[in-house]
Amino acid sequence: MERVKALVKPAPAVGAELTTVPLGKMGPTDITVKVKAAAICGTDIHIYNWTPYAQARLKLPMVFGHEFCGEVVAAGSNVTKVKVGDMIAGETHIPCGNCFLCNTGLEHICQDMKILGVHVPGAFAEAIVIPEVIAWQIPADTPPTVGAVMEPVGVGVHAAYAADVRGSTVLVTGCGPIGLSTIGAVKSCGAALLIATDVSEQRLNMAKKYGADIVLNPLSTDVEAKCKELTNGLGMDVCIEGSGAPSAIRQVFACVRRAGEVVLFGLPDTDVGLDLVDGVIYKELTIKGITGREMWRTWYRVEDIIKRSAVDVKGIVTHEFPMSDFDEAFKVAKSGKAGKVVMYP
Amino acid sequence: MERVKALVKPAPAVGAELTTVPLGKMGPTDITVKVKAAAICGTDIHIYNWTPYAQARLKLPMVFGHEFCGEVVAAGSNVTKVKVGDMIAGETHIPCGNCFLCNTGLEHICQDMKILGVHVPGAFAEAIVIPEVIAWQIPADTPPTVGAVMEPVGVGVHAAYAADVRGSTVLVTGCGPIGLSTIGAVKSCGAALLIATDVSEQRLNMAKKYGADIVLNPLSTDVEAKCKELTNGLGMDVCIEGSGAPSAIRQVFACVRRAGEVVLFGLPDTDVGLDLVDGVIYKELTIKGITGREMWRTWYRVEDIIKRSAVDVKGIVTHEFPMSDFDEAFKVAKSGKAGKVVMYP
Amino acid sequence: MERVKALVKPAPAVGAELTTVPLGKMGPTDITVKVKAAAICGTDIHIYNWTPYAQARLKLPMVFGHEFCGEVVAAGSNVTKVKVGDMIAGETHIPCGNCFLCNTGLEHICQDMKILGVHVPGAFAEAIVIPEVIAWQIPADTPPTVGAVMEPVGVGVHAAYAADVRGSTVLVTGCGPIGLSTIGAVKSCGAALLIATDVSEQRLNMAKKYGADIVLNPLSTDVEAKCKELTNGLGMDVCIEGSGAPSAIRQVFACVRRAGEVVLFGLPDTDVGLDLVDGVIYKELTIKGITGREMWRTWYRVEDIIKRSAVDVKGIVTHEFPMSDFDEAFKVAKSGKAGKVVMYP
Amino acid sequence: MERVKALVKPAPAVGAELTTVPLGKMGPTDITVKVKAAAICGTDIHIYNWTPYAQARLKLPMVFGHEFCGEVVAAGSNVTKVKVGDMIAGETHIPCGNCFLCNTGLEHICQDMKILGVHVPGAFAEAIVIPEVIAWQIPADTPPTVGAVMEPVGVGVHAAYAADVRGSTVLVTGCGPIGLSTIGAVKSCGAALLIATDVSEQRLNMAKKYGADIVLNPLSTDVEAKCKELTNGLGMDVCIEGSGAPSAIRQVFACVRRAGEVVLFGLPDTDVGLDLVDGVIYKELTIKGITGREMWRTWYRVEDIIKRSAVDVKGIVTHEFPMSDFDEAFKVAKSGKAGKVVMYP
Repeated sequence: MERVKALVKPAPAVGAELTTVPLGKMGPTDITVKVKAAAICGTDIHIYNWTPYAQARLKLPMVFGHEFCGEVVAAGSNVTKVKVGDMIAGETHIPCGNCFLCNTGLEHICQDMKILGVHVPGAFAEAIVIPEVIAWQIPADTPPTVGAVMEPVGVGVHAAYAADVRGSTVLVTGCGPIGLSTIGAVKSCGAALLIATDVSEQRLNMAKKYGADIVLNPLSTDVEAKCKELTNGLGMDVCIEGSGAPSAIRQVFACVRRAGEVVLFGLPDTDVGLDLVDGVIYKELTIKGITGREMWRTWYRVEDIIKRSAVDVKGIVTHEFPMSDFDEAFKVAKSGKAGKVVMYP
Repeated sequence: MERVKALVKPAPAVGAELTTVPLGKMGPTDITVKVKAAAICGTDIHIYNWTPYAQARLKLPMVFGHEFCGEVVAAGSNVTKVKVGDMIAGETHIPCGNCFLCNTGLEHICQDMKILGVHVPGAFAEAIVIPEVIAWQIPADTPPTVGAVMEPVGVGVHAAYAADVRGSTVLVTGCGPIGLSTIGAVKSCGAALLIATDVSEQRLNMAKKYGADIVLNPLSTDVEAKCKELTNGLGMDVCIEGSGAPSAIRQVFACVRRAGEVVLFGLPDTDVGLDLVDGVIYKELTIKGITGREMWRTWYRVEDIIKRSAVDVKGIVTHEFPMSDFDEAFKVAKSGKAGKVVMYP
Repeated sequence: MERVKALVKPAPAVGAELTTVPLGKMGPTDITVKVKAAAICGTDIHIYNWTPYAQARLKLPMVFGHEFCGEVVAAGSNVTKVKVGDMIAGETHIPCGNCFLCNTGLEHICQDMKILGVHVPGAFAEAIVIPEVIAWQIPADTPPTVGAVMEPVGVGVHAAYAADVRGSTVLVTGCGPIGLSTIGAVKSCGAALLIATDVSEQRLNMAKKYGADIVLNPLSTDVEAKCKELTNGLGMDVCIEGSGAPSAIRQVFACVRRAGEVVLFGLPDTDVGLDLVDGVIYKELTIKGITGREMWRTWYRVEDIIKRSAVDVKGIVTHEFPMSDFDEAFKVAKSGKAGKVVMYP
Repeated sequence: MERVKALVKPAPAVGAELTTVPLGKMGPTDITVKVKAAAICGTDIHIYNWTPYAQARLKLPMVFGHEFCGEVVAAGSNVTKVKVGDMIAGETHIPCGNCFLCNTGLEHICQDMKILGVHVPGAFAEAIVIPEVIAWQIPADTPPTVGAVMEPVGVGVHAAYAADVRGSTVLVTGCGPIGLSTIGAVKSCGAALLIATDVSEQRLNMAKKYGADIVLNPLSTDVEAKCKELTNGLGMDVCIEGSGAPSAIRQVFACVRRAGEVVLFGLPDTDVGLDLVDGVIYKELTIKGITGREMWRTWYRVEDIIKRSAVDVKGIVTHEFPMSDFDEAFKVAKSGKAGKVVMYP
């Protein structure tokens, strides 16, 4: 396997190209993985659309994609944990292994991390070479569809566990694939009342299936008023923001109660103006930024959630395509109405 | 004592008037306190200047002032803790005693709190009637100057204890009286490196006296670059924002390291635009809003700090006036260069 | 209502006497409550049996009982929250209101607390005078059976919330009424695997109904081996000890994993010998002692649990008697096989 | 360097033998370190004395010793961080790298760890082969005496940071080398009052130098009464137990206040009988077991403490010997009156 089929961002313009590329060279601590399935992330859409976000980060040409699972087909001489034949899912963040963050158990926010499919060749390919350190072994019978979305589901789970939702009133803004994972995880941790918001009715319907007690479309409902009404005027114990929309971000600071918790993981495109006095300081809020997945605390949780069927991980995936239909796959993913879109190389 | 001398905001215009007013009626759970000393807060300056902040909150006429200490001279029939003759310092936040916050140990951010000197007559007066529930007993030999500033010092102490500064690199932005208290408290809790910023050189000099290892004027120094330089490129473990200046607020999010902590207590006049992606989410920050003082956890800490001379509380006060010189007192307080200004009725 | 029917411990011997006693004098901050239902606690059994525990605490004669609910029929002049006609459940711990613990939001472990039915006359009576400060208002339509057991259920809920059980493997030892409440609350907070132990098969059957995934009788099963087997040799994330049996206490320290959490609320009769080296220190455990209920954080949680039917609170009660059958009621309660026993005055 | 001089436990009897042994074989992720200095730990005394603790753990013959620093003289082909010529201090715990604990940032309490000088050949030798993963780079100018005791000092620092000592009253029981490190670290984190106890007057004198405000010998003083007296009857906020003496362990549970914190790191020889009811449960204590050092959070703290001279690390060492005088060195170390004893190979 010297050359592999791969989806490449060839040049600074919209779109991508399915072609063949040389497979990366495998060092002593690397493994080669035959990709079984790979899912499309918001970052991939940025790359496909060649937005400023992508322009600032990629050197072209670049194979992209980073949510995937596959089978280990070769292993370097110093690989110690995984074995040829193992099924693995991939962590996107490649930690440097030697900074303060890596040295204190926070590899997932490494000071010098590389991102798979952004800084180094990604997973929209027949096979990929990765360092063993980002491989998470999964049971051999895990459906590839499920294995491919453990990474984005992990973000949702990480966000859900970042606040104390037990017996709490919780608002989740944004019901994309990660938001749905958050909703499922929050509900499985015993939220007393879960309100979810999105501007897409399809996504609100999915939110209900994942456990939202009440779904609201902010285009037609006064979310803050509704939250207050449902909490005797107090406001929500916890708000988890996953949309990245500035209006939703401002909303969570209005909806949360005094001494409440706000978790932010949705990525806004611009600076966001906040009323810090009434929205944060006078409320004595605790706010947490969340990105990626704890290595490996979150992965254990995702594994457990799949095993117990605590959240319907498979149901997060609403569309599947052969990688040859990548243009159609990206079209669906960009619609803002789908769940996760998975491609098979 | 039916009428007392008091500083009153009589009408919607700049300034104040020293006059006599009837002393409030004392209910069964109230006490009457002969005021020994009272300090000028930023809120009082808002009231004096009749800013929109004040206009939105006060019904005139109103006796203002809320940082004070004095002697209990009368007590209602159901007063149980303090006795006539006790010296007390006053807590500004009058909790309702019956909301979710009050019922869970968070009276200081009561859902329906009244503010002394804003919603009910304040402490710039010979005597004041307050509910026993906001009285904190202090030793009889506490200098009135010290007793009068336990309230603002408490804000600084509360902020300092809101983050884990032990052995940490800490940035404190804003070296007014509360910021100085923060600096002193942070240093007394074992910060490894304390950088303080302010635009006033006088205040930076005071910051040094209170324990800042390095003081920086953001008008002439690149604070972010300096913080990075002093932390091997990592950034600060903890940033505590006490200036309320939007530029300083944005700065703390740039200066703090990944997985760091930000404490906000300075009150900006407007919404503040923040880069939540690189400043909060990718860093996985923990942010806490801080206001007032925990009742009574913070007061115990302030009492201990005074007793141990862990922070030079008296030195926070740089100017003292008889209340009859209130115009001069406010002029100094408004300069942005002084420490605390105390008046004696 | 000058004299009321009440269950009294008249003299230092086994048993109790149903007689009439003068109703307590109501001060300005007290209320008089007509008792609707009262439940029998382990402490009441100590008193009935006149054990050393009871001998060390009570001055006789004493009306006992402290788990109750009822209707407010009179209120002192300074009562501010509850009104005549309100239904209330009673908190057992009467805080002094002025110690360090009371002043820092921890009234439930007040340094100088009085215990209802131990230090002051209790609730096994037609009516009782209590300070307003221990009254928790409940909806008018709360069944008295439910209202009477909010106090013990609260202990179980407090214990369940003392550890992070979300997605965790949890062992609960002891399936009495409080243990069952713990099991229900733990399961409602998203435990991944809940193992419960007791020596009574009846109680193990109830444990299953309250959500235990696996129930074990330590008399016939090697609990430690089973816990290890079910967790791939790791041990339990969380252990909550509610039996008070020294053997069970030692067991939780053997069953819990490294970096796990142990919550202790069961009261052993004697000192307990522990292997601190392998059981605590080398594991870097976190252990928390739990008693009573947070005032009022826990009561809000219990209220919410009842409202959502998150735990079958009514089902905790397995036996009901008129108070005149108190000897039979205590006989059942002492059997160690029942759920909660409630009496109606 | 095929054979090296080393201190060996040759046979199951008291004592040790200075001889030459073959240097271990260096694998691709290993390094060879020329030992500059090594300190004697309590574990080494167990080995020297051949106590049951040692008998249960060692297979003979074994080179022992694990507190050391030295220069890297060779590095395997896959070593990525340290370089030949670097000075390093050694972490004692060799994590497996693949268990739940290792995978969640808790390598220092790895489920399957090996202990240097217990399970694999140790550091009382001219040179040692260790996996790179336990090497901590130190500045080239670190005095070997200091480098050799960073490991035990780390235990004390880890214990000190395990509780919130800021502005707190703290009791430290046991003033051996680790206890002294705890005292220094606790004081540097702003304890309001630090009481230290030991049965050796020499060690109590050292405790004073490391910052204890008050030192007590439990053989001649009622420690509990004194703690209560100095805290207005409340008890200590935090107790840190480092002696391992059952009497001291029982004492900390008597001395700590309600809602206080207890940290245990001293290793008792036997099970310890505890009054869990009054000592733990009714107090709602939080207890933490502490062992070793967090990898690498604690090491960063130790590095910072040395750099700032926040604790006199060098002063912990009271005796130094050439390794050829090992019998004398062990005699001093066993006396219970010395600080740390360091040997030079």
